[in-house]
Amino acid sequence: MLTLSSKNYSSWSLRGFLMCRMAGLDFEEAKVSADDPDIRAELLLQSSSFLVPRLDHDGMRIWDTLAIGEYLHERAPEAGLLPKERAARAHCRSICGEMHSGFANLRSALPMNVKVRHPGFKVWTGAQADIERILTIWRGCLKAYGGPYLFGAAPTMADAMYAPVCSRFTTYDVELDAPTAAYCKAILALPAMKEWTKAALEEPDEMEELDVEF
Amino acid sequence: MLTLSSKNYSSWSLRGFLMCRMAGLDFEEAKVSADDPDIRAELLLQSSSFLVPRLDHDGMRIWDTLAIGEYLHERAPEAGLLPKERAARAHCRSICGEMHSGFANLRSALPMNVKVRHPGFKVWTGAQADIERILTIWRGCLKAYGGPYLFGAAPTMADAMYAPVCSRFTTYDVELDAPTAAYCKAILALPAMKEWTKAALEEPDEMEELDVEF
Repeated sequence: MLTLSSKNYSSWSLRGFLMCRMAGLDFEEAKVSADDPDIRAELLLQSSSFLVPRLDHDGMRIWDTLAIGEYLHERAPEAGLLPKERAARAHCRSICGEMHSGFANLRSALPMNVKVRHPGFKVWTGAQADIERILTIWRGCLKAYGGPYLFGAAPTMADAMYAPVCSRFTTYDVELDAPTAAYCKAILALPAMKEWTKAALEEPDEMEELDVEF
Repeated sequence: MLTLSSKNYSSWSLRGFLMCRMAGLDFEEAKVSADDPDIRAELLLQSSSFLVPRLDHDGMRIWDTLAIGEYLHERAPEAGLLPKERAARAHCRSICGEMHSGFANLRSALPMNVKVRHPGFKVWTGAQADIERILTIWRGCLKAYGGPYLFGAAPTMADAMYAPVCSRFTTYDVELDAPTAAYCKAILALPAMKEWTKAALEEPDEMEELDVEF
């Protein structure tokens, strides 16, 4: 059972979902209501949630995105959530960790919102620095491992971690060069990503339910 | 080579250092200057740094704390940075991840500062919620695995992740019950922690160098 919150707004839920799909896990989904105070805080960008994504599997409860990724890698090493080669694996975990603990400016200024488009969105300096750092990471990986995914021919945990950024770059019309644009396109074309996007587009708007003005 | 910043102020550096000591790694230390803009931003609590701690080992460069922990666990599995039993390991990674991505209020309101003491420090509500959550995590682990460390008889990656919190609770005079006070005492008594504390106390004050008023 994978517990998620909003498919339109919750970037952490998306990461957990993609990892479970990559691992080929047969799972059901549960949705935490936007009425839950912790989820509300997450959706309002006041805090990362302690509750989602949460994987209940085989009697275990795992509630952090990287912990879910490592668990799935242990259970299904052949799925390739982490690269086979040690140095690439250490590199993959470094950039996963960087996404996990960092990029606060990007998160607050360009929140995930699958449904909308903001052409010509003006990015402030702090968030622009986050964007530049992410593009540097992507270019480095695509060059070192040959693409189309960050660590080569198949998606890894790192692609799941950065997938919400691909969605954000589309929503906020962020300018990309050819390699990074091709990378975003490849991620958005993943079957699991298309499945998620479709569900997000069909989701009732929970921010309206929360009665919040943006 | 392990690259660190301030021993008095940098909680991330402390985590990486403890993990390397736990793994029994024979390493040299390098120090990034407080003049570096990224390090300055970390010490001023404006961002988590992308640069430290950074482990250069065997031709690899690993720059995220959890990635360093996972790498060390791969190289020295017998050191027990992660628990041997699968469910405990998933639990350990969950709470490591929660520390890695969360507790922003605690970080900003009670920054690590090994040298000073603030008796009767007034904790605001947001940080208090973080403290409560951490104490709940600790109590759960100490009860489930029997202490004295979070996952039983020997320290793991999780103890390294929460060690700076033990230091903060001492600095800011945070009230603890008997089991959590005993846990903090056990962490602060670890030889590697005493080694770090001694070095922090002897470190010239870099915040003065940064010319910042607190």
